[in-house]
Amino acid sequence: MLVGELGEEALLEKMRRLFSSGLAAFPANVIIGIGDDAAVTAPVAGSEVWTTDLLLEGIHFQTEWQTPRELGHKSLAVSLSDVAAMGAAPRYALLSVACSALTTVDYILELCQGIASLAAAHRLIVIGGDTTASGGPLVVGLALSGVIPDGGTAVFRSGARPGDRIFVTGHLGNAAAGLLLLMRQAAGDFPELREAFVRPEPRVEAGMRVRQHGGAAMTDLSDGLAADLRHICRESGTGARIFQARLPISDALLRASRRFDFDVTSLALEGGEDYELLFTVRPENSNRIATAVAATGVRVTEIGEILPEERGLLLSGDYGERLFKERGYDHFLAG
Amino acid sequence: MLVGELGEEALLEKMRRLFSSGLAAFPANVIIGIGDDAAVTAPVAGSEVWTTDLLLEGIHFQTEWQTPRELGHKSLAVSLSDVAAMGAAPRYALLSVACSALTTVDYILELCQGIASLAAAHRLIVIGGDTTASGGPLVVGLALSGVIPDGGTAVFRSGARPGDRIFVTGHLGNAAAGLLLLMRQAAGDFPELREAFVRPEPRVEAGMRVRQHGGAAMTDLSDGLAADLRHICRESGTGARIFQARLPISDALLRASRRFDFDVTSLALEGGEDYELLFTVRPENSNRIATAVAATGVRVTEIGEILPEERGLLLSGDYGERLFKERGYDHFLAG
Repeated sequence: MLVGELGEEALLEKMRRLFSSGLAAFPANVIIGIGDDAAVTAPVAGSEVWTTDLLLEGIHFQTEWQTPRELGHKSLAVSLSDVAAMGAAPRYALLSVACSALTTVDYILELCQGIASLAAAHRLIVIGGDTTASGGPLVVGLALSGVIPDGGTAVFRSGARPGDRIFVTGHLGNAAAGLLLLMRQAAGDFPELREAFVRPEPRVEAGMRVRQHGGAAMTDLSDGLAADLRHICRESGTGARIFQARLPISDALLRASRRFDFDVTSLALEGGEDYELLFTVRPENSNRIATAVAATGVRVTEIGEILPEERGLLLSGDYGERLFKERGYDHFLAG
Repeated sequence: MLVGELGEEALLEKMRRLFSSGLAAFPANVIIGIGDDAAVTAPVAGSEVWTTDLLLEGIHFQTEWQTPRELGHKSLAVSLSDVAAMGAAPRYALLSVACSALTTVDYILELCQGIASLAAAHRLIVIGGDTTASGGPLVVGLALSGVIPDGGTAVFRSGARPGDRIFVTGHLGNAAAGLLLLMRQAAGDFPELREAFVRPEPRVEAGMRVRQHGGAAMTDLSDGLAADLRHICRESGTGARIFQARLPISDALLRASRRFDFDVTSLALEGGEDYELLFTVRPENSNRIATAVAATGVRVTEIGEILPEERGLLLSGDYGERLFKERGYDHFLAG
């Protein structure tokens, strides 16, 4: 059945039922979910964290690149990654979906299933939803709130100081390579790279550990290491040095690069959408924090150090040091 | 200058500056606004209210119908109206904008000004934003949170009981008439009707009064009186009777109807997007609540009463009673 045959109200009712099991798991928190003018939740102690993302067909994804369930997963993962980058625990999500009347109801419900599964894994509750027709492209909007336990503070981009060690979780460049392979219709041979792009795992637990163990500054890798590290340095008023030999590159990326002549270092530095965490920590806390993050089952690698601002952003490699290129991915400038 | 020349990051920086005066007015509430991975706000006492809306060019608006500032106003008004319909005080907003790279920077900043002005009028703070390219159409997403003071409860759709009096704020059908006039390029002669559609005033203060003075059930008029009253009746397990002669019809709507042969009653019952409040109240509270709402400067009219469920939804007019038609506006089914 098509969305245009079912209608907006009946579709929203199906979404309400789908997300209601998430509500049922936390009955004390949600006073009313989808179905009134707005959702209502019980009071909570602690600071709140807020983020929103809009994903558009043709800009952020093509429908043929992934299943609707994967698309739902990724739509939520992008926002969860922002919550993770503050060191917060996810709490509530509001979902907006705009689609053509010719979209199948099953497609939208599978997309919602992908969101619901990832939400459940991180104790996030989808409390509100809005559906509407679009002129054509599928649009998925998510707004999330998270909480920092009472008395705690979030980890900002501005907290870095010269001498801090710089860490990243996971591997770098896998998502960008996955995207290149999808565009060449060659992703089938590299499931790990495809998965990194279409189904990233937000580092929620790792982010909370970084906060609990004294992380100084943190952001998530959405625009690429060079651009995202620049955000930390700009907000902190520092420079930084990254050691090229320490960049965590996956075996799959090395194999794909040999076959397709990818520039591994460029992908690792400038490839976006890895949704790993980039954080800095005072030297005396670095062993403790690395151990705590690794205990969540996530790879963690020390890749460099924070420098005074006048040093700029340096990449230290076999042939000496060079300054980073200016910028990462920009949706408008790419057009 | 075009958005595609400025780039995503510089545009977001301009939005950050534009919305920062709103943050400055409430320094204790906002720990960090736009500019980190997520916004962070201080703890608050009371239940929280959440809503989200997505407005798309070609579906919800045409850019030639209104100025960008009016479009910003309306985008926020739609969500503020949902917060108002719970009786909550608005608190924070997250804004998402997707537009073509060929959109002018001024257009987006004017749109943001429209949002910022309405936000300031209701003590709402825009704490986060996301911008991205779209394949073409302009998309504006807003997610809002509000708060019910500690110990209070929201006003739900489900609170109506037989015997309740039914009230609406403002006039009915003006927005739908304004839309018809815009489509006929005849809105210039009826500024009040055009304004009702392109620049609705959310009834935030009125909604809070309804809650404080014992409102039983409430919703806002987005789909049309018949459809929205049906929502209250379905959630409350009741029927209702509306007196046709009591429907608040503006002089402007009567004049336009004479000139263009509009069906006034249909517009009042089935025209959407008035963003007025529809609420019910126990008979013994009805005078008190009407006085309290009118004191906010908003017209308030008693239009009917809640009946037992088996009576259905009745319209009582000069020629006896009839049942309402089945439904209001549906974006998918309209296509």
